Amino acid sequence: MADPACERLALIGVGLIGSSIARAARQFGAARHVAVMDSSQEVVGRAGELGLADVATQDYAQAVRGADLVIVCTPVGACGDVAQSLAPHLEKGAVLSDVGSVKGAVVAQMTPHLTEPARFIPAHPIAGTEFSGPDAGFATLFQNRWCILTPPENADGAAVEKLTKFWMRLGANVETMSVAHHDAVLALTSHLPHLIAYNIVGTADDFGDETRSEVIKFSASGFRDFTRIAASDPIMWRDIFLANKDAVLQMLGRFNEDLSVLQRMIRRNDGQGLLEFFSRTRDIRRSIVEQGQDTAAPDFGRRAEGR
Amino acid sequence: MADPACERLALIGVGLIGSSIARAARQFGAARHVAVMDSSQEVVGRAGELGLADVATQDYAQAVRGADLVIVCTPVGACGDVAQSLAPHLEKGAVLSDVGSVKGAVVAQMTPHLTEPARFIPAHPIAGTEFSGPDAGFATLFQNRWCILTPPENADGAAVEKLTKFWMRLGANVETMSVAHHDAVLALTSHLPHLIAYNIVGTADDFGDETRSEVIKFSASGFRDFTRIAASDPIMWRDIFLANKDAVLQMLGRFNEDLSVLQRMIRRNDGQGLLEFFSRTRDIRRSIVEQGQDTAAPDFGRRAEGR
Repeated sequence: MADPACERLALIGVGLIGSSIARAARQFGAARHVAVMDSSQEVVGRAGELGLADVATQDYAQAVRGADLVIVCTPVGACGDVAQSLAPHLEKGAVLSDVGSVKGAVVAQMTPHLTEPARFIPAHPIAGTEFSGPDAGFATLFQNRWCILTPPENADGAAVEKLTKFWMRLGANVETMSVAHHDAVLALTSHLPHLIAYNIVGTADDFGDETRSEVIKFSASGFRDFTRIAASDPIMWRDIFLANKDAVLQMLGRFNEDLSVLQRMIRRNDGQGLLEFFSRTRDIRRSIVEQGQDTAAPDFGRRAEGR
Repeated sequence: MADPACERLALIGVGLIGSSIARAARQFGAARHVAVMDSSQEVVGRAGELGLADVATQDYAQAVRGADLVIVCTPVGACGDVAQSLAPHLEKGAVLSDVGSVKGAVVAQMTPHLTEPARFIPAHPIAGTEFSGPDAGFATLFQNRWCILTPPENADGAAVEKLTKFWMRLGANVETMSVAHHDAVLALTSHLPHLIAYNIVGTADDFGDETRSEVIKFSASGFRDFTRIAASDPIMWRDIFLANKDAVLQMLGRFNEDLSVLQRMIRRNDGQGLLEFFSRTRDIRRSIVEQGQDTAAPDFGRRAEGR
C-alpha cells in the first residue's frame, strides 16, 4: 500500500457509517491496519464474519492501542460516554474524529474528556441510506459526497491535514466551517426534512386500518419518498433532534410560517400565487442537479423495471 | 396485433403521461391506431418528430373522429374546456376517460358537456416522474403501478371493462373506488407530501445567497429528496391543490396537529417519545416495501457510482 492516509485506523461503532469507512479504507488504501470496536457482541461477531477489519473487538483498549487515527461512529447521544471510555487508551499524537450529524453537542460532550483537544477534529460525512448495521455499509458510500470538518480554533494543523487526506482518499470532497454554522445549515437541509418526513408518515398512520392499508397501497408518487426518509435509524434521529434542538426549532418556526402562507393561498384559490411559488422551487431543484449533487435521470435514477 | 384493448385511441394532451400512454399503447399492443392532440404547435411538432403516434394534430375533430377510446391527459384545470371542445366530435359509443390526480373536480367540470355520461370513466394512473413534456414519457411508466378507476354509479359496464383491459395491457394494476374516497386518500398520499416538499424548498430559498448556496451544496440526505418532488410541473400542481382544496386543507390540519406534538417533544427533550414515534414510522415503511410498491435496495435503487 503506497502512502496510506494513516497507518492504524480504529473505528468505534460498526453501523452503516463505521462499516462503510472500514470497507472504503481498505478498498482505497487509506489505512494499513483497521480495527473496529462495538459495544454489541452481536455486531462484533458480524463484523468478524464479514471480514470488515483486521481486528474486531468489544474492548476499547484493544481497538485504540497504537492507532494514529480514531473515528467515533456511534449515534450522537453516545459520544460523551465513548470519549470518556477511549480517552485513557489514546496514543499521544493520535488524531481523533467523529461522524456525527450534529457538531455542537458532540464537541461539548467529547472535549472535556480529552488530554489533547487540539487533535480532536470533528467531521460529518454527508452520506447515508435508510439502512443500519454492519451489513448495510459499502465502500463507495462517500464517493463524490461532502465531508464537513469543524476544527476547533486552536486545531493542530497536521491533524486537520491528515483527516482531510483520509476523507479525500475515501472519495469525499472536504469542506471546513465553524461548528455553529454547520449545525444551522444541516438543521435546514437534513434535520428538518427528516422531521417532516417522520411526521407525515405518522399522520398517515393515525387513520383507521382500512385507510392505512390504502395509504400504503397507493404510496407511489409523493408519500413513498417520505417513507424512505422516515425509515432511517430511530435512535440516531432521536439523538440528532435532541442534540441540535435550538437550530431545529428555529427552522421549524420558519417552515410553519411559510406553510401558513401556502395554506392561505389554497383556501383563497390564489392560483397565481401557487404557480409562482411552485416555479421558484423548481429552479432550486435545477441548481442542485447542476451542482452535481444529484442525477437528472427520470425517476431519480431508480431503475424502471423492464425499461 | 392480436386482440388490442381498443381499435383507435385518441390522447388529448401530450405531456409526460400522454406521451407515455402513446408509447405504451404501441409497445404493448393496446391500440391499433393512436392519435395525439395538443393545443401547442410546438408539442405537436415534437410528438411528430418522436414518432409517438399515427396522427399528431392540434385539431380536436381530427384526433377524436373514429376513436373508440379517448383519454384526456391535460392538467386538471383544463379538463372542462377540453370536454366542451371534444364532446361534439365524440363517436357514439366511444369510451371517454382522463388521468387527473383529482377526480371530484374533473367529474364536475367534464360531465355537463357529455351526451353519454355513463361512458365517461374517470381514471388516475398513480405514476410519474418530476419531468414534463413529450420527451419525458416512456412506455414502462405504468408497469406494476396502480390505476384507480372512479366510475359513476350508472356507469356502462362494457366501458369500465374496456378501460380496465386497456390499463392492464399497459402493465398497471386496476382498482375501483368512489370519487370522494379517491380524493381523500390521494390528498394524504400525494397532494400533502407535494405541498410540504414545495414548502420546505421554499423555506430554504428564503435564506441569503451564501446560505442558499450552501443549502444546495449540502442537500444530500434529506433535502435532496424533497427537491425532487418539488421539481414537478407547477401548473399541474397548482390545479391539483385548487381542485382538491377541501381534502388537502383537512389533511394539512391533521399534519399540523401532529407536527406540534413532535415539536413539543423536541422542546421538552422527550427522547422516549421521539424514539417511539420514529420506530412506528419505520414499520410503515416496511409495509410499503413488503407490498411491492418500492424497492428495499440501499439508496432507493439509485446507482452508487462505481459500486
